[in-house]
Amino acid sequence: MCELLGMSANVPTDIVFSFTGLMQRGGRTGPHRDGWGIGFYEGRGLRLFQDPAASIDSEVARLVQRYPIKSEVVIGHIRQANVGQVCLANTHPFSRELWGRNWCFAHNGQLVDFTPEPGLYSPVGDTDSEAAFCDLLNRVRRAFPEPVAVQMLLPVLVSVCAEYRDRGVFNCLLSDGDWLFSFCSTKLVEITRRAPFGPARLKDADLTVDFQAETTPDDVVTVLATDALTDNEKWIQHQPGDWTLWRRGERIADGKA
Amino acid sequence: MCELLGMSANVPTDIVFSFTGLMQRGGRTGPHRDGWGIGFYEGRGLRLFQDPAASIDSEVARLVQRYPIKSEVVIGHIRQANVGQVCLANTHPFSRELWGRNWCFAHNGQLVDFTPEPGLYSPVGDTDSEAAFCDLLNRVRRAFPEPVAVQMLLPVLVSVCAEYRDRGVFNCLLSDGDWLFSFCSTKLVEITRRAPFGPARLKDADLTVDFQAETTPDDVVTVLATDALTDNEKWIQHQPGDWTLWRRGERIADGKA
Repeated sequence: MCELLGMSANVPTDIVFSFTGLMQRGGRTGPHRDGWGIGFYEGRGLRLFQDPAASIDSEVARLVQRYPIKSEVVIGHIRQANVGQVCLANTHPFSRELWGRNWCFAHNGQLVDFTPEPGLYSPVGDTDSEAAFCDLLNRVRRAFPEPVAVQMLLPVLVSVCAEYRDRGVFNCLLSDGDWLFSFCSTKLVEITRRAPFGPARLKDADLTVDFQAETTPDDVVTVLATDALTDNEKWIQHQPGDWTLWRRGERIADGKA
Repeated sequence: MCELLGMSANVPTDIVFSFTGLMQRGGRTGPHRDGWGIGFYEGRGLRLFQDPAASIDSEVARLVQRYPIKSEVVIGHIRQANVGQVCLANTHPFSRELWGRNWCFAHNGQLVDFTPEPGLYSPVGDTDSEAAFCDLLNRVRRAFPEPVAVQMLLPVLVSVCAEYRDRGVFNCLLSDGDWLFSFCSTKLVEITRRAPFGPARLKDADLTVDFQAETTPDDVVTVLATDALTDNEKWIQHQPGDWTLWRRGERIADGKA
């Protein structure tokens, strides 16, 4: 299996703290040694760092930890391979352009007997995850050849995710750089940090940050993860079938499939 | 204007030496301060590093110089903006998936009054370069809905490039990770290094490398660039209209449009 990390914020925010916690699970405190990746949106651009090496040994991961990239939407992933060999093409998150925006996707779980219909988007690697992402985009594009607001999209996103969930385990994060969508099939937690901010202590590394010192009173930052990343804060657990939609740190829609 | 860098090799080869030369032109020995990017193919995967900062000041560029990534096909670019603001979405190289492969593209030049027909691929940013890349892929896809060999593609690639060239300046590099295609509208040079290898000295930095010590006798490595990167080797100049196609370091096709 794998672990997911997502962030939605109302100001460009660096995710170094959460990323540092997650990276420990890629070989030190967790078994997810088969690659890692993280995508940072900067405006409409998407900056993607990926490495098929274990995050704990990765030179690129060290750069990302050292070099605070500020972003309003982030999707990260550490991989423990089940379908598809360990190589760059099989490393999450995956991205594709749709309607002139970069869409980014990461998946935790696995799908059984999954052979979607071919379409405009085709997988480059051989994971079930990338195949699902391409199938999802193909279905969005068939439903809406022209761009629509995310509220129009939601029924398609939710029904496709619910269908995948019936074929295995499908926790996912998806974004077009504006909104962040999550679907929980088995495991996903969230936390929204806003004023008054306090200290947060990582579970997986000896690191505490005082968000009070690093934020302004108006900042709103939501983090989604497979497992809670800190041990002194209250993370909200999603239930199977729960989906959420975030924009600028705030939950703008949710439901249960 | 901008500068291009391309590599095709028959063994995974690091491009640190050439990259180090090119990066100097991004603010030190050249005026190309408006971002830089480089894409390394690893198998079917594409590892893309991009930064809208000047390469000479870029932390990510330092990582790429320090950390030798071995690849058989590389496309790099440093930008001096003419169309489109300086931001990540406007930073070359651009990439899109076509036929289950990552295509990667970089452009040096500018196009005048360029408003291509909309199609499946749409630009994310607002450069003429990305618009041309999307238009090129749209035309390839219209001509060949299903994958074809690059030899079948060539007439389409060449005629589209020739058409763009009539609208301004269009030097470009394009790859699907297997082959590397170049088109020269005004400026492009190449060098193929093979045994017996000798020393090479950068024009833009005080750095000499002895390729003899870093290669095996069977290695074949071709580098393409806007301007020669070394001052003690013979680079071959392309003429306006020249196109070339490379695979594993060898020129497998060429012609003049």
